[in-house]
Amino acid sequence: MDGHARAARRPGGGPPLTPGAGQTRYSRVSPFEGLTGELRRLPGIGAKTALRLAYHLVKGPKEDIRRLARALAEVAERVHPCPRCGNYCSAEICSVCRDPSRNGSVICVVEEAYEVGAIERTGRFGGLFHVLGGRLSPLDGVGPEELHIGRLVERVSEMDEGPKEVILATNASVEGEATAVYLEELLRPLAVRVTRLARGIPVGSDLEYVDGTTIAEALAGRREVRGDGA
Amino acid sequence: MDGHARAARRPGGGPPLTPGAGQTRYSRVSPFEGLTGELRRLPGIGAKTALRLAYHLVKGPKEDIRRLARALAEVAERVHPCPRCGNYCSAEICSVCRDPSRNGSVICVVEEAYEVGAIERTGRFGGLFHVLGGRLSPLDGVGPEELHIGRLVERVSEMDEGPKEVILATNASVEGEATAVYLEELLRPLAVRVTRLARGIPVGSDLEYVDGTTIAEALAGRREVRGDGA
Repeated sequence: MDGHARAARRPGGGPPLTPGAGQTRYSRVSPFEGLTGELRRLPGIGAKTALRLAYHLVKGPKEDIRRLARALAEVAERVHPCPRCGNYCSAEICSVCRDPSRNGSVICVVEEAYEVGAIERTGRFGGLFHVLGGRLSPLDGVGPEELHIGRLVERVSEMDEGPKEVILATNASVEGEATAVYLEELLRPLAVRVTRLARGIPVGSDLEYVDGTTIAEALAGRREVRGDGA
Repeated sequence: MDGHARAARRPGGGPPLTPGAGQTRYSRVSPFEGLTGELRRLPGIGAKTALRLAYHLVKGPKEDIRRLARALAEVAERVHPCPRCGNYCSAEICSVCRDPSRNGSVICVVEEAYEVGAIERTGRFGGLFHVLGGRLSPLDGVGPEELHIGRLVERVSEMDEGPKEVILATNASVEGEATAVYLEELLRPLAVRVTRLARGIPVGSDLEYVDGTTIAEALAGRREVRGDGA
């Protein structure tokens, strides 16, 4: 087992192979480096997970890797923000905006496009969306100009006839709340009802484990129990 | 918010949009479906992680997605098992096998190609590798024919002159041990020293948290403490 005792140069011209130096890294298992490097750039994927994914892909049928590569290329070529609401789509305008059965007098405002999915999956919202593209966060240099707020005001002015409503579904964080307050003040003159998602106890939680602020909000927002079970 | 009260057909011809049915799924956020579907096939990536990754990719520069797609395509085209040892490589034979400074009279046998990296990273092994491609597991229908065992026997017969050694670095699981026992019996007639990785207390562990079997193995494999600190 002394074959590496000589500090010989490796064919690739890399650093000399000295035992115990631990700097060998992946240079010997090299062709993955490109792939693991790319995988590591993804959120929540560290060095070990990237390696595990790369090996999983290489061990499986080549067709699986190619299909993933094609799916990525397809998304890169075809997906773009909907010019009306900012949700991602591959058509000219997104499927929500072009659905004639959606209620055009209600707009639900979310921070990011992925939150559209969270609301859509409930199956309980039939209006349109507006994606802000973030939230007000002066410390991070995100002011109203960085968000799609001007377009929201335009859309509210051009809304369908009837009882108009804007639901502010920004997150329940400090920045999300600040963004909601800002939008409420901005939209108030436009003769539109501005609402905010209810704060309260999440369904299925034990009161014991819910934080005090949430319980306080749930108390403040308590609702009459109607005898008819509705 | 009653726009969805009519069970209207959506343009895509999907199921009718009935409120509260919760079956809408992602059909409205559709172009990701291909990508999220592919991402979900990866180990350890569930529906939520797949969505999060897909949105992260779409939100970032298109070039990032294209680079990942290219890295995948490159791996699909170029990476294959080394015909000698079974490690993955993009050259004709892998960098370990073609490195003249490696000790050709020592072969370290591992179950899977990703374990080569784990050993290489220690920088303490200068011999060659042999990837079995799994371990004996009769219950899963994996017998000796399913593994690259015949090739191992050939390689041992053709080994460099000198004190030959085969290090069985199969996992410390029941199947890994059974595989090691099988290989040891198979290799014994070939006049080769057959060794197994030491069992013992992992570096940095508290004895309190190490399982009894490991402590028993560490006791059985205890070593003389030498006064010279070597």
